[in-house]
Amino acid sequence: MSDAPAAKNDDVMKKLVALCKNRGFVFQSSEIYGGLKSAYDYGPLGAELKRNLMAEWWRDMVTTRENVVGIDASIIMRPEVWRASGHAAGFADPLVDCQVSKERFRADKAPRPAAPGPLPITCPDKGVAKTYAEIIEKNFAVALERDGNVLNGLKAISATEFGFFPKGADAPAKTWPWRGYVSPLIGSPFLTAEKQFNLMFRTALGAVDPMQEVAEITARLTAQGDLVEAVKAHFGKTAESGALAKALESGERAKILRAVAEQVTGASMVYLRPETAQAMFVQFKNVMNSMSLKPPFGIAQMGKSFRNEVTVEHFIFRSCEFEQMEMEFFCEPGTQGGWMDYWKEQRMAWWRRFANHPEKFKFRPHEKDELAHYADQCFDVEYEYPWGWGELEGIASRTDHDLHAHQDASGENLEYVDQEKADPKSGKKPWKYLPYVIEPAAGATRAVLCFLLDAYHEEERTTAAGEKEVRTLLKLHPRLAPIKCAVLPLIKKDGMPEKAREIVAALLRAGVNAKYDEKHSIGKRYAKHDEIGTPWCLTIDPDTLKDGTVTLRDRDTTQQVRIKADEAVREIRERLDRC
Amino acid sequence: MSDAPAAKNDDVMKKLVALCKNRGFVFQSSEIYGGLKSAYDYGPLGAELKRNLMAEWWRDMVTTRENVVGIDASIIMRPEVWRASGHAAGFADPLVDCQVSKERFRADKAPRPAAPGPLPITCPDKGVAKTYAEIIEKNFAVALERDGNVLNGLKAISATEFGFFPKGADAPAKTWPWRGYVSPLIGSPFLTAEKQFNLMFRTALGAVDPMQEVAEITARLTAQGDLVEAVKAHFGKTAESGALAKALESGERAKILRAVAEQVTGASMVYLRPETAQAMFVQFKNVMNSMSLKPPFGIAQMGKSFRNEVTVEHFIFRSCEFEQMEMEFFCEPGTQGGWMDYWKEQRMAWWRRFANHPEKFKFRPHEKDELAHYADQCFDVEYEYPWGWGELEGIASRTDHDLHAHQDASGENLEYVDQEKADPKSGKKPWKYLPYVIEPAAGATRAVLCFLLDAYHEEERTTAAGEKEVRTLLKLHPRLAPIKCAVLPLIKKDGMPEKAREIVAALLRAGVNAKYDEKHSIGKRYAKHDEIGTPWCLTIDPDTLKDGTVTLRDRDTTQQVRIKADEAVREIRERLDRC
Repeated sequence: MSDAPAAKNDDVMKKLVALCKNRGFVFQSSEIYGGLKSAYDYGPLGAELKRNLMAEWWRDMVTTRENVVGIDASIIMRPEVWRASGHAAGFADPLVDCQVSKERFRADKAPRPAAPGPLPITCPDKGVAKTYAEIIEKNFAVALERDGNVLNGLKAISATEFGFFPKGADAPAKTWPWRGYVSPLIGSPFLTAEKQFNLMFRTALGAVDPMQEVAEITARLTAQGDLVEAVKAHFGKTAESGALAKALESGERAKILRAVAEQVTGASMVYLRPETAQAMFVQFKNVMNSMSLKPPFGIAQMGKSFRNEVTVEHFIFRSCEFEQMEMEFFCEPGTQGGWMDYWKEQRMAWWRRFANHPEKFKFRPHEKDELAHYADQCFDVEYEYPWGWGELEGIASRTDHDLHAHQDASGENLEYVDQEKADPKSGKKPWKYLPYVIEPAAGATRAVLCFLLDAYHEEERTTAAGEKEVRTLLKLHPRLAPIKCAVLPLIKKDGMPEKAREIVAALLRAGVNAKYDEKHSIGKRYAKHDEIGTPWCLTIDPDTLKDGTVTLRDRDTTQQVRIKADEAVREIRERLDRC
Repeated sequence: MSDAPAAKNDDVMKKLVALCKNRGFVFQSSEIYGGLKSAYDYGPLGAELKRNLMAEWWRDMVTTRENVVGIDASIIMRPEVWRASGHAAGFADPLVDCQVSKERFRADKAPRPAAPGPLPITCPDKGVAKTYAEIIEKNFAVALERDGNVLNGLKAISATEFGFFPKGADAPAKTWPWRGYVSPLIGSPFLTAEKQFNLMFRTALGAVDPMQEVAEITARLTAQGDLVEAVKAHFGKTAESGALAKALESGERAKILRAVAEQVTGASMVYLRPETAQAMFVQFKNVMNSMSLKPPFGIAQMGKSFRNEVTVEHFIFRSCEFEQMEMEFFCEPGTQGGWMDYWKEQRMAWWRRFANHPEKFKFRPHEKDELAHYADQCFDVEYEYPWGWGELEGIASRTDHDLHAHQDASGENLEYVDQEKADPKSGKKPWKYLPYVIEPAAGATRAVLCFLLDAYHEEERTTAAGEKEVRTLLKLHPRLAPIKCAVLPLIKKDGMPEKAREIVAALLRAGVNAKYDEKHSIGKRYAKHDEIGTPWCLTIDPDTLKDGTVTLRDRDTTQQVRIKADEAVREIRERLDRC
């Protein structure tokens, strides 16, 4: 993902981000305070685009299907949910900082040069050379030249035992632990210790800020002579097993204090959901019973999720706060293969239906070693972003893994009882089983970016005056476009505004999002509506008041036709229905 | 709010909560894990009801208005936003626990008996008496009988100096600080210290869990001899002013450690928004500029907010995670009075439009001493819940307070420049001003509850067999109803299901949420659709296939008329448009 994109593609992102800000699609969150890199605000047009997109998903996945229902669950859920789902444990990445470049990276993804041998050290500038030399001097008592020669000195050192311990009489005052990997950017072995980092945001639910309690208890415990004894006395039985006991065994003060803090805050700690999906499993039985459903059926949900991403990148592509559109489809064990094929076809058709460039959407099957242990198949829907192919949606065959995990953890029986079928094992009715699950899980925030990119077009054209100019337009699918129809009085008098507002009102009554717009020249207004993706403009001019006709202009072709004003609503409605 | 409700009203809530669970409107969050008291999940019908309700608000407040635009901002915002808005400071309540009853309450709202004098102590049962006696014995070395006499003993003690210090030779071994108030439930003066409690949820944004850093730094600092000196050495200049300096001055270990923790976590700490409103002020300029707006105009937003409520109560009325529908209307200073009147009228009309009992909605003007210092007027829209009148929406005239605060805190100029008008003070053009604001801020979650309560009806009727029975129905406004039209084949054969599905498809194409339903007898299906608020049922029977007519049944009157099947869509569409 961090490949250097081609200049032209880079350009497209820059232009799109600028258009998004200037035209009210997307702003940086808290911008006047310096902004947050990891969260975005949707402006008036972006909010409509996102609403339209998510409404289309809901319509296709829920409203029009007999066997799929929707839910809208809370963002804060009990921590047991995330322990059962594996997120509390598996969502943690070991992170390390490079002491030279300050780069932060995932230890498990870092380059692992073969040792003993030379390290892939690079030294892009004098600043880095200086830092390298300082660290070497401080830790190994070896002075290196602080210029281009640093690199040679480093290479010589790194070529010795395990890559970088100097040998012989000049033996180091301190040695440096060899971690088996180096920093990705400059190949440095000078790294901080690994820190565990959980992708889930946590917060405290309850009446009193746990930080206060942590401070109070820590103060009491550390004021006593022996921390280990003080902790044992304070926590009693609790300190005899689990994380607290482990920390006490280590004897490390920081580990013990951390375990104390975890213990004190644990009671009130909750997570912000890192995905919407788990609620469908947790509420599976409530939904099935209240709606008298039987497999195969689906439960769908759209909404916000939160992940403390190590790297936020590519505008709204990867941010810490984002939206998802997910569905869990519960089916009889053994039928999952057929349903996988069905949902793959359905979902790809949905993405391509709204695209100008359907060829930029493809499936990528997960390799065997990439599959979660419980999954029997998984496909990503990928889109060709300016920086390369990237994920839009994952469609996974998850077996009964999730229901199983929640059944085990909660003690609630989550089986479906099919009175009409015999258990394949015993041959007897009823068949009690945990349904198998196909999960099409799409990113709504990414979908917004993908359809903005798909829609962004620049067209060179020659003006009436013979000059070349570039027309920027968003060829958004009319169902996604924030405004379906702009109604424009040619000038702000002679009854034209009144007539235009009359048509707007009629369009709104017919459920078509229309906007009255009288600012600037008609040419500027057309250009603006091209740029924000309005598929049609109706213009009211002096003829309208004479013969009752208006101009209907098409965004993509710029062609104009005259139609009767009182047929405008029907015409727009039909065009929308056709697409 | 905690008044004991009349038995009948209590009944209504119980019945409604049960209906919500049984019919798939609202479930407790994480129910299979014991549930969260403070968050709810919306089931298939509740999700549709909430979507419909919020879509109506958006349509009325945004889509159909030329001068209002919508936004959709992030839940995580920079902490500066909440410092400028006053939430970071003003959202903190001092909380106290009663040591006897374990009740947790707000110190600033507790009863304050006149001292010295008797305390309003009550002792509802022997358990409480026992705890009282134990505390007295432990702290005052006075033994009291542990039965009914405890109360007399307590009253005698409480009648002495400051209400409860025993005097004379039996002077207490320890005294108890008199806080000026007692616990609301049992009037006890035996209380814990006040704890500050911030209603905002906080979490950490960034790559490493700050709890880990807090533990490491605390370990390092407390391992040294003198904590104050260690903190000063570690933090340098930072420790010389602000909260850290104050804590060091106090010399209290817990206070110092708390300040250290705040300092370490401060850099990555963010809040979950406690209201949607601030984003409209923070993005005011971006929205105004990108959309070429000039006052008067409004910015609206719907979405989730989070408050760590001390008391969660009345089902979804007060929960920690909830949804809001808020609008900030920016107008010229001096015009706010007229706009206040306008928005009051608009908003009350909106609430009443969907109600069976419009008389249950009223305005409650805020008293002078209840008004925020910056507000020049405020009205609550109240609804008569089963437990009494309570807030649904606040409509406040907030002057330029919020824009002022954000302009000062961010250093960004947020003024509107009106080129055409002269500054009233200088008499010269342009007029640069911070717009005044009218804010209609409604609770979406509360709106769901209010319209469910408004819709809940029980009707006694006599069956054909002469038996009395109760019909339960939700008289939801058709625009709010989760399903507008159920299409029911009388029996599951003879082409009836096919015909019914054909009509469902046609209704969906026309944008009407329809559902096919073939389970159970026709009577049971009518009863179910009454109970979930479906306004109309279309029934396909043998005659349909002969003469092309269907039965259209009305939920509220239960009356049935026969209409032509191919006019059913138009008929339902027209009924929806009319209401």
